Amino acid sequence: MRATMIHAAGDIRLSEVPDPTMQADSDAIIKVLAGCVCGSDLWSYRGENEVSEPHTIGHECIGVVEEVGSGVRDFSPGDFVIVPFCHADNTCPHCAVGMHSVCDNLGFTVSGQAEFARVTQADGSLVRLDGVPDDSMIPSVLALSDVMPTGWHAARSARVGAGHTVVVVGDGAVGLCGVLAASQMGAERVIAMSRHESRQKIARSFGATEIVAERGEEAAERVADLTSGVGADAVLECVGNGQAMETALRVARPGATVGFVGVPHGIELPVRTMFRRNVGLAGGMAPVRAYLPGLLELVVSGAIDPGPVFDAVMPLDDVAEAYRAMDERRAIKVLVRP
Amino acid sequence: MRATMIHAAGDIRLSEVPDPTMQADSDAIIKVLAGCVCGSDLWSYRGENEVSEPHTIGHECIGVVEEVGSGVRDFSPGDFVIVPFCHADNTCPHCAVGMHSVCDNLGFTVSGQAEFARVTQADGSLVRLDGVPDDSMIPSVLALSDVMPTGWHAARSARVGAGHTVVVVGDGAVGLCGVLAASQMGAERVIAMSRHESRQKIARSFGATEIVAERGEEAAERVADLTSGVGADAVLECVGNGQAMETALRVARPGATVGFVGVPHGIELPVRTMFRRNVGLAGGMAPVRAYLPGLLELVVSGAIDPGPVFDAVMPLDDVAEAYRAMDERRAIKVLVRP
Repeated sequence: MRATMIHAAGDIRLSEVPDPTMQADSDAIIKVLAGCVCGSDLWSYRGENEVSEPHTIGHECIGVVEEVGSGVRDFSPGDFVIVPFCHADNTCPHCAVGMHSVCDNLGFTVSGQAEFARVTQADGSLVRLDGVPDDSMIPSVLALSDVMPTGWHAARSARVGAGHTVVVVGDGAVGLCGVLAASQMGAERVIAMSRHESRQKIARSFGATEIVAERGEEAAERVADLTSGVGADAVLECVGNGQAMETALRVARPGATVGFVGVPHGIELPVRTMFRRNVGLAGGMAPVRAYLPGLLELVVSGAIDPGPVFDAVMPLDDVAEAYRAMDERRAIKVLVRP
Repeated sequence: MRATMIHAAGDIRLSEVPDPTMQADSDAIIKVLAGCVCGSDLWSYRGENEVSEPHTIGHECIGVVEEVGSGVRDFSPGDFVIVPFCHADNTCPHCAVGMHSVCDNLGFTVSGQAEFARVTQADGSLVRLDGVPDDSMIPSVLALSDVMPTGWHAARSARVGAGHTVVVVGDGAVGLCGVLAASQMGAERVIAMSRHESRQKIARSFGATEIVAERGEEAAERVADLTSGVGADAVLECVGNGQAMETALRVARPGATVGFVGVPHGIELPVRTMFRRNVGLAGGMAPVRAYLPGLLELVVSGAIDPGPVFDAVMPLDDVAEAYRAMDERRAIKVLVRP
């Protein structure tokens, strides 16, 4: 099949590789209808994560079941499914409390930017739709494989509630979905930190009531101004680096929680400051499967539409350009179609 | 007055010093009936916090109002009061959400192990009782000035709930109060980590259902055994050092929160592990005044009795011995009476 491979930092190629094959009775093979590039793929692309040997890349996709293992009961070839980027059995004690991203049988999609992908724990992971959705629905449904549940997890971890003033740090696709999540959860004010006009526009359409274009110290001062010096009731840290975390912890009011969902890179947590200010931290890899049914309902009913985080669509053949566009911030998130 | 002073690590002396005086209209002076030594006083005593110059020490006390400032409306000389170790105006935006320990007008008791103590923000801080309680009630009432609300804050920060399995790291007075708090909040199992038989006994009387005497790696393995490999629903970190925090984070199940209340010393938070396991952290200095009315009711009604954390009573004259006894772990917590 044709699959996206990363060979080294900055070196993305579409290559011919063997099709994925069944490795366990609980596996399924998905024919990918749409995949996309994730902000976390850029860590490898930018050399911040080591690429020790060339491998396929891409963990977000939706598609049609091609083949199922003998242990798969709930899905059959032909089913249209959303594939959570992290696979879970949906039965272990961690899944039982909604922590599917720490499942005892955790797996990951590893060829989401390709023609086919293998999903482990198919019964526990996949969520089916009635038929293939309209082309117009593809982006918002694809967003449910990772980015929207990840923004949702940030908001849930930060314990966003009705009437809250929420700050979202990061204007990438996850941050924007965090804005959408906070707004949907009843936040009264959603302050989005964004320097880019196109992203500010999406943030506003997702429910942001205010935009802070400053960064670091100045951003914290702006939030202080906007909240009469009190700080935010909940903060979503959707970047994963040191500066973003520092800002997030600073703008949280005492008693608030920072929800974090960006894989941490270069973060040192200021434990004494957290203690002194009574600011908590919670989050991690999103338990996509836990949120998926509810979020799908919200998408299908039209209550939320995360689709606009995809501001570019490219054929799989152009996947290297998709990475470049995101790396250079010419695109927020690129949808690729095999 | 006679007051406890620390001159350097290990050097505690009872000295004659000037009485505290009113410094603001909102102040009150309290004649101390009972004070005590806190685990956090030992940081200075043990040289882990620098003592740059001799100063009075002791932040926990109860007593009778001796004098009030012209701005104090709700208290008069003769009132018997509990003095929260951190003083708060009870009106600022942080107090309004129960974060009295981050009050805009925060103050602290600085001569609790003495004959008199000054309380700033008297109206916002003090809680009155009807008359001087019986001698038998003194320990449990004194515990409300810090140690019991601090254990309570650990449990609240960890979001202990009905039916939970809770682990409490630390068998000092705060840890024991954490056991009492978790039990009172409806935890089904409370696993207390303690190596000392006398403390284990109090822990059990406070509601601990299981004791783990091991430390570090072995303690984590024991908790894994006790929880079928799943971990605890909530964890209270009541020590404040690196090993305790490491253990606390390890024994928390994915999705759980570690509530921490020990002033952090030598703690480096493993942010990537917290992310991978979706284990959160929350807590800090306890907002004593927020919990005080409710806890006082529980004490008066007999629902809780934190008094047994005081396993020694000494006259103020023997305060140096009180420190030694606690430093050498011969005593859990010493009550001193001027």
